[in-house]
Amino acid sequence: MNLMKYILQIHCPDQKGLIAVTTQVLAKAGANIIDLKQHTAKDIGIFFLRAVFEIEEAGILEVKNHLKSIESEYQLKWNLLNTKKTPRIAIFVSKTDHCLYDLLLKQRDGALACEFSCIVSNHTDLGPVGGSFGVPFYYVPSNQEKSVQEGRFREIISETKTDGIVLARYMQILSADFTQDFLYKIINIHHSFLPAFKGAKPYHQAWHKGVKVIGATTHFATEDLDQGPIIFQDIERVPETVSIGELIQLGKDIEKRTLSSGLKLWLEQRIFVYAGRTFIL
Amino acid sequence: MNLMKYILQIHCPDQKGLIAVTTQVLAKAGANIIDLKQHTAKDIGIFFLRAVFEIEEAGILEVKNHLKSIESEYQLKWNLLNTKKTPRIAIFVSKTDHCLYDLLLKQRDGALACEFSCIVSNHTDLGPVGGSFGVPFYYVPSNQEKSVQEGRFREIISETKTDGIVLARYMQILSADFTQDFLYKIINIHHSFLPAFKGAKPYHQAWHKGVKVIGATTHFATEDLDQGPIIFQDIERVPETVSIGELIQLGKDIEKRTLSSGLKLWLEQRIFVYAGRTFIL
Amino acid sequence: MNLMKYILQIHCPDQKGLIAVTTQVLAKAGANIIDLKQHTAKDIGIFFLRAVFEIEEAGILEVKNHLKSIESEYQLKWNLLNTKKTPRIAIFVSKTDHCLYDLLLKQRDGALACEFSCIVSNHTDLGPVGGSFGVPFYYVPSNQEKSVQEGRFREIISETKTDGIVLARYMQILSADFTQDFLYKIINIHHSFLPAFKGAKPYHQAWHKGVKVIGATTHFATEDLDQGPIIFQDIERVPETVSIGELIQLGKDIEKRTLSSGLKLWLEQRIFVYAGRTFIL
Amino acid sequence: MNLMKYILQIHCPDQKGLIAVTTQVLAKAGANIIDLKQHTAKDIGIFFLRAVFEIEEAGILEVKNHLKSIESEYQLKWNLLNTKKTPRIAIFVSKTDHCLYDLLLKQRDGALACEFSCIVSNHTDLGPVGGSFGVPFYYVPSNQEKSVQEGRFREIISETKTDGIVLARYMQILSADFTQDFLYKIINIHHSFLPAFKGAKPYHQAWHKGVKVIGATTHFATEDLDQGPIIFQDIERVPETVSIGELIQLGKDIEKRTLSSGLKLWLEQRIFVYAGRTFIL
Repeated sequence: MNLMKYILQIHCPDQKGLIAVTTQVLAKAGANIIDLKQHTAKDIGIFFLRAVFEIEEAGILEVKNHLKSIESEYQLKWNLLNTKKTPRIAIFVSKTDHCLYDLLLKQRDGALACEFSCIVSNHTDLGPVGGSFGVPFYYVPSNQEKSVQEGRFREIISETKTDGIVLARYMQILSADFTQDFLYKIINIHHSFLPAFKGAKPYHQAWHKGVKVIGATTHFATEDLDQGPIIFQDIERVPETVSIGELIQLGKDIEKRTLSSGLKLWLEQRIFVYAGRTFIL
Repeated sequence: MNLMKYILQIHCPDQKGLIAVTTQVLAKAGANIIDLKQHTAKDIGIFFLRAVFEIEEAGILEVKNHLKSIESEYQLKWNLLNTKKTPRIAIFVSKTDHCLYDLLLKQRDGALACEFSCIVSNHTDLGPVGGSFGVPFYYVPSNQEKSVQEGRFREIISETKTDGIVLARYMQILSADFTQDFLYKIINIHHSFLPAFKGAKPYHQAWHKGVKVIGATTHFATEDLDQGPIIFQDIERVPETVSIGELIQLGKDIEKRTLSSGLKLWLEQRIFVYAGRTFIL
Repeated sequence: MNLMKYILQIHCPDQKGLIAVTTQVLAKAGANIIDLKQHTAKDIGIFFLRAVFEIEEAGILEVKNHLKSIESEYQLKWNLLNTKKTPRIAIFVSKTDHCLYDLLLKQRDGALACEFSCIVSNHTDLGPVGGSFGVPFYYVPSNQEKSVQEGRFREIISETKTDGIVLARYMQILSADFTQDFLYKIINIHHSFLPAFKGAKPYHQAWHKGVKVIGATTHFATEDLDQGPIIFQDIERVPETVSIGELIQLGKDIEKRTLSSGLKLWLEQRIFVYAGRTFIL
Repeated sequence: MNLMKYILQIHCPDQKGLIAVTTQVLAKAGANIIDLKQHTAKDIGIFFLRAVFEIEEAGILEVKNHLKSIESEYQLKWNLLNTKKTPRIAIFVSKTDHCLYDLLLKQRDGALACEFSCIVSNHTDLGPVGGSFGVPFYYVPSNQEKSVQEGRFREIISETKTDGIVLARYMQILSADFTQDFLYKIINIHHSFLPAFKGAKPYHQAWHKGVKVIGATTHFATEDLDQGPIIFQDIERVPETVSIGELIQLGKDIEKRTLSSGLKLWLEQRIFVYAGRTFIL
């Protein structure tokens, strides 16, 4: 017997009996549901379901066929992930290493269920880090045409069998084409403040405004790089006596924490994107 | 058509197809599930399910009969709550009013889905508060036999059609008989510390130990009044320059916040008690 | 002997020996410093000092004269508060009462060292609350000229010997003249988000953006009502399954907590305003 | 001119004019105070002061002599730290590396103002980590007499000019002699819970009790290894659906965060120990 573990995500307009219908699909194929979460967002009338289940290898085809057969009736969007297949994630960095190290260490410690397929950077500085963790490092200089760079990215993604990308303080803009082709497969982090600050040196601005709380936001990268659907947010109180330099340091800590938490949600297939926002189950 | 909203709670030893079976019960009776959360605690092999569903009045009997018919096969424990029936909660207090006011205001503001059936106290001090919120106040002095007091409690509970009790800083011990008869229907709050402190004046002890974090725990009252299953916990950082008096004040704030949060979880029928602990779905 | 407790606030450009100079002023006048906090914001070269001290009544004049005599040499800005004189605070409200009750209860409980001089509202709804707490209620309808309303405010402030104003969800704009005349004496609260939202129904916007954290900001009211120097900020995580309605409820809880915390800092004379931001010592 | 930065810590029984006296000591020697915090713990009548100041090299002897001359009059305990002299810290580990990496990375990133003098372990596993960060690694097996081990520790401490020790998940008991000889120079971390759990496998116990919040405590190591004065505490909420394994993982994250925060307070010379507890200024 070859027992596999899958994660099923479903969303569709709310209607009667949806859970019974979908769980019957699984039951009939011999699946055992370990964890199920369902939520109907009443404000928009949308049904979300995430189920983790175990099934014999043979049964999964039946599940897929069954789901396909009811797709149009229920306007079902669904997604099925085989957890045996460890996702392969590329990390894009520039020169800053706080997020990079945090990801590599958490993964090695078993807290992130992925493999890192490669590290890609527009600088050579962090190459040795890749080496010491056994992750191949690719240098793609940013002083070439964006299309040339992104062509190289596509090659690397293909060669390294990469499933998703984490921008771990990668300080370059990605084109609309590129983000569109890997929609909801690129995760980015950026600082967040109450209130928000536009323009350069946000920590300087925040300090001069005397903000008492700073935060960071993990989100999917879309064309508008910092405006994609929010995945996770975290904050930290600002001690009154911090200097601008210490505030930047504090920001780094939140950024790395928030990025790895966001990646974790993604790897666990907990994220639904609907109408421009996420629902996390 | 008379559409009712119910909450179903189920727990039993984990086995294959449980969700499908239970959601089929609902589907067959014409129910529409709005919100469902299921979790199997792998460490102990127990399946928990909470479902909120809408159903026509006629259908609910079918649900009940169907659940009964599969009870023994699956060792199912289940509970069904009609949300149209607003729970009636008694508040027990002594002289301190911070928790009392917080509950009354939150309820009036729509944040707690209950009615307060009565306020019971071993002092007369807080009688006027009951008056100003239109909640009947009962004075049951504590200078009588415990059995006499608790006899009076039982009368009040019966007269006021009370479904549950919140001990909102009620500084009296309840008997094992009483807590047993209202098992998992009495909610208590107590301060909590890292580390814990035994004996009198815990905030004094905590101050002298220099603790940096204080907390509060909402839990079900059992025979051992402060050791029942934990429902909710919250904490607050202790500023370094607080005096003992200010620490006590800080504690009050956490207590009231934690008590109303715990009551909310209970009213929403989110709490499962199994093997001496809660699981909140 | 008539021992008084004072709070001294000083700020000026940083220079050598400032603490020694200022504490000598106090020592020579026979003061006993109970609590002192000093911070030099290196990024802008400004020295801040807050000292709580006890002194015999006779000594305080010496302190004042001495401070005056060194003012120009050190470009000293200073402020001296007699803590025996309990500040009298007016609460401005519209129809919403969550902040109002929180303030009244905390004050009665000893957590806010002030007296509430009056409640002012553009509606009559909350009059009875004033009554039950023994705080005079003034109805100043907003369907009159702003200048007429604010003329009435000035009369009330004068009659009730009011030292400061808390806008506890007072949903009216104040004129630039009025906020200027009571600069850093009016405290306001408003919701805050990551990211920020402009325009109407911010909680609706936040929900549709799927924000994971919401917050509130207490700040001084200036001409630009929501942009004055920030006093305090707090946040709360947003559970994934909240509806818009529940999000608004959650927001209320943060607002009241943040407003009373901000007022507390102000009453304790902990706030310095410099270069458009606060420093809290 | 050779400007040095010093940190002065003073504590003594409270009395009038103490700040003026001590800041005069600094002013007379030509010091410029950058940051000063003073707090009198009224509940026990003790005065605490921490001052960061700049001074020419020549002046510091005057400061020391002056402080000595007033010691007995005021029952002054004082301590003077030259910040130019970077503290050298030894890290003791066993096999677990989450705290170790966090310390090494934060230090390299400039967030911890120390040098790591050596890594000491009763296992060889983490030797390579020392290598990759350029920190000498010493293997001191624990299958020898405690006195032999601690003799070796003393040699290493001496050879590497170590000023303090961080027990970063070092799973061995230290003798009363050793902790006494390095009193308030050894920092330890341990998990903390609401409520507390005695005995083995605390995370298992916590899970079975259904705790909603777990924490960690950084404290000074004393004879009773887990009961020394508390330096820092932090907590994390426990998601309801965590397994025991995930709870342990969550604990690791808090532990490392709490340990490096505690070390930071110590390096900044912010900690006073008095009457068995710390006061952090």
